[in-house]
Amino acid sequence: MGVLDECHYHVEVENGVNVVELGRERNPETVAIEDAVRVLLQGLGEDINREGLLKTPLRVAEALRDGTRGYNQNVKDIVSGALFPEAGLESSVGSAGGAGGLVIVRDLDLFSYCESCLLPFQVKCHVGYVPSGQRVVGLSKLSRVAEVFAKRLQDPQRLAGEVCAALQQSIKPTGVAVVLQCSHIHFPNFRSPLSDPNHQGLVKLSVISGSGVFDDEKAGIWTDFLGLLRFRGVSVEDAHTRGSLDKSWCPSRVICKMAASDSSLLAAVSSILYSLGEDPLRKDLMETPARFINWLMNFKNANVDMKLNGFVRPGIFSGGEEHICSELNLPFWSQCEHHLLPFHGVVHVGYYSSNRVNSVGKSLLQSIVHFYGFKLQVQERLTRQIAEVVSSVLGEDIIVVVEASHTCMISRGIEKLGSSTATIAVLGRFSTDPTARAKFLQIIPHSTL
Amino acid sequence: MGVLDECHYHVEVENGVNVVELGRERNPETVAIEDAVRVLLQGLGEDINREGLLKTPLRVAEALRDGTRGYNQNVKDIVSGALFPEAGLESSVGSAGGAGGLVIVRDLDLFSYCESCLLPFQVKCHVGYVPSGQRVVGLSKLSRVAEVFAKRLQDPQRLAGEVCAALQQSIKPTGVAVVLQCSHIHFPNFRSPLSDPNHQGLVKLSVISGSGVFDDEKAGIWTDFLGLLRFRGVSVEDAHTRGSLDKSWCPSRVICKMAASDSSLLAAVSSILYSLGEDPLRKDLMETPARFINWLMNFKNANVDMKLNGFVRPGIFSGGEEHICSELNLPFWSQCEHHLLPFHGVVHVGYYSSNRVNSVGKSLLQSIVHFYGFKLQVQERLTRQIAEVVSSVLGEDIIVVVEASHTCMISRGIEKLGSSTATIAVLGRFSTDPTARAKFLQIIPHSTL
Repeated sequence: MGVLDECHYHVEVENGVNVVELGRERNPETVAIEDAVRVLLQGLGEDINREGLLKTPLRVAEALRDGTRGYNQNVKDIVSGALFPEAGLESSVGSAGGAGGLVIVRDLDLFSYCESCLLPFQVKCHVGYVPSGQRVVGLSKLSRVAEVFAKRLQDPQRLAGEVCAALQQSIKPTGVAVVLQCSHIHFPNFRSPLSDPNHQGLVKLSVISGSGVFDDEKAGIWTDFLGLLRFRGVSVEDAHTRGSLDKSWCPSRVICKMAASDSSLLAAVSSILYSLGEDPLRKDLMETPARFINWLMNFKNANVDMKLNGFVRPGIFSGGEEHICSELNLPFWSQCEHHLLPFHGVVHVGYYSSNRVNSVGKSLLQSIVHFYGFKLQVQERLTRQIAEVVSSVLGEDIIVVVEASHTCMISRGIEKLGSSTATIAVLGRFSTDPTARAKFLQIIPHSTL
Repeated sequence: MGVLDECHYHVEVENGVNVVELGRERNPETVAIEDAVRVLLQGLGEDINREGLLKTPLRVAEALRDGTRGYNQNVKDIVSGALFPEAGLESSVGSAGGAGGLVIVRDLDLFSYCESCLLPFQVKCHVGYVPSGQRVVGLSKLSRVAEVFAKRLQDPQRLAGEVCAALQQSIKPTGVAVVLQCSHIHFPNFRSPLSDPNHQGLVKLSVISGSGVFDDEKAGIWTDFLGLLRFRGVSVEDAHTRGSLDKSWCPSRVICKMAASDSSLLAAVSSILYSLGEDPLRKDLMETPARFINWLMNFKNANVDMKLNGFVRPGIFSGGEEHICSELNLPFWSQCEHHLLPFHGVVHVGYYSSNRVNSVGKSLLQSIVHFYGFKLQVQERLTRQIAEVVSSVLGEDIIVVVEASHTCMISRGIEKLGSSTATIAVLGRFSTDPTARAKFLQIIPHSTL
């Protein structure tokens, strides 16, 4: 419960499960997901009654239900009323308008939940069709229909196939083509080597699906379609068709199974799947609870003290002239405690030293960043914690900038793709001297978030 | 009414005003806007009963009401429950976390309606605050609050000021800063010189607003804020503060007033403003109906025959070897007949000629494109019409590609920013020879839509 809303918001917890918000009835599915999320939070070693987490079960439930609202949507309702008669070309040799002229909508940004691990993945969707019967569909309906299937637990190839089939059936055109460029976030394992140079932050996959004249992927009409994508800078030479990929793209697939002792956590995830309208026994979902728990437990509340003894604060006793030194673009991975959704980005650290060589080493700073990232967090706290710990190592004049991309800002109802957050913590001279801050901010290179 | 939905959709028009859709009651505001839109369509010389326009009044009404839903939203409801206690730095010299550490959300994409002309304008919003009292606000709330004020009839400086004041009041932080980079579509006048090289498709304006510690735009904290924007590539050196701009940025401001004879059209627009919850007599809205009508009447249904007599089809009688020739990136401006919202982009024309010099001239092709754009259109029809007319000038082998950005795809509920549509029409050899099509598509340069 927020600190300002005592008068507006009233929570009753009865037997730890029944939460009623004033003036707002929750439906049974939402309540069931909230219960399951409480089990997960407890599994993470968290206090479910601490203020930052009190509404997390509700936020997670609402985000999940909104993110899978496609289960309750009907393509027929969307396309119905948006088919318009449109004459084709008068000439007998040619096609355009309502007769055979390819129509494409390019670069639709979609988000979907990975059915293998329950993390959101991002989709750049290109969809087209060849009208027939002198009728065209309202352009925005191509986007709306794609949304219906994106808002479900998905796999890229199935998503492409379902969008394609639904448009073919509802518009009844000469053919439909769907190209999806998908990106799946790939967290490093908490215990894996830090800043593994081979770790890719994203797994990418392009898939295509076609029906009607696009059924044959060697057909000339595909050349037209891909030609119209090419000058938007889209290349899908390595795209997969349905069945051409023998294993899932999801990075969590390689993870070993959970120990049997976590059965209550597994049951909680199964309960969430069920509440979303899915069948937890569906083949592609069978291992999903284990994968999700395996991933989530990376963020288990750990009170391991950082081993910082033995490090000497550099520069302070050397008497030479001090300069602003920096370690930039230290990657971090974290979990938003308000939504149980990942956020990740980079940390920039500045300090004063008379020694131009960083005597502490980038690897220690990276360890600090890594450690404080891997737990339930908010970016403001992460920034402060890094500054405090770094200060114990590198002296009292510290500046920390955290730049992050929050999944909770780009999935859910917000959908502010491309947005990024920046937070700053300053200690000592960086707190009192605006010029020092400005100098450090000038060093930071253009972001690639 | 779409051609497929006879069974699903039932319209009753009683006395020309009362429209009831089966299973869906319209509220009085929506009905009033629909009535007004019918007046506007008749003013454009359109048949309001033709199939493509039958649901346009409802679509326009729903889009306008959705696009101005901020009038019915309350900032307190949004921020309430999303203020979290967050300890500041333990050190006494410094700031971070819940005490003084700047927090910024960058690159939020918003859309708003220009109060001067009722066209949508696009906003790249950067918003930040300095926490106080050891409490921070959920990051997504900064976006949600900005949305509340964007979803109203707006002017950039007022929008920045309202977002800033609302956040200051609801979060009660040490200060709030808002930077908006706004882009307003700028249509050429139908009768203005074609392809005026000085015509800019967009009018741009950056504005800033600050409260608390950001109240003084010379304050050092602004340097921090702009420093954190800089490495996202954002520069706002020419940004305006409230009151620093003496006239509106809206390009329609320069247009002369309407003749008195259009009073029914003006009344229709006033009625729309009223139905959206605005006061048509508010100072900044007084001239809005005249400006909107002046703009809308650019698209009056005109049956002027293109003067194509006297042009000789080149190449056909010359006997030399024929090559694919092209005119690329001919700009066009049009009005979507389904939503009364602009779409604009470029047209690429290909044809066969043995003469490597275009004997027809780019200016004639540009005239054709310009003429067929300036009316109520759908992109598929525009593509076909251009192909047919160009064929009468440049021979029977024609390919036309239209690339467009549709306001109806990026404003309204769809909000697919960055999406673009492509349509294609082919005649003669381009219809039968996939290699010819592929060759032409290869010529088209990367799009800048």
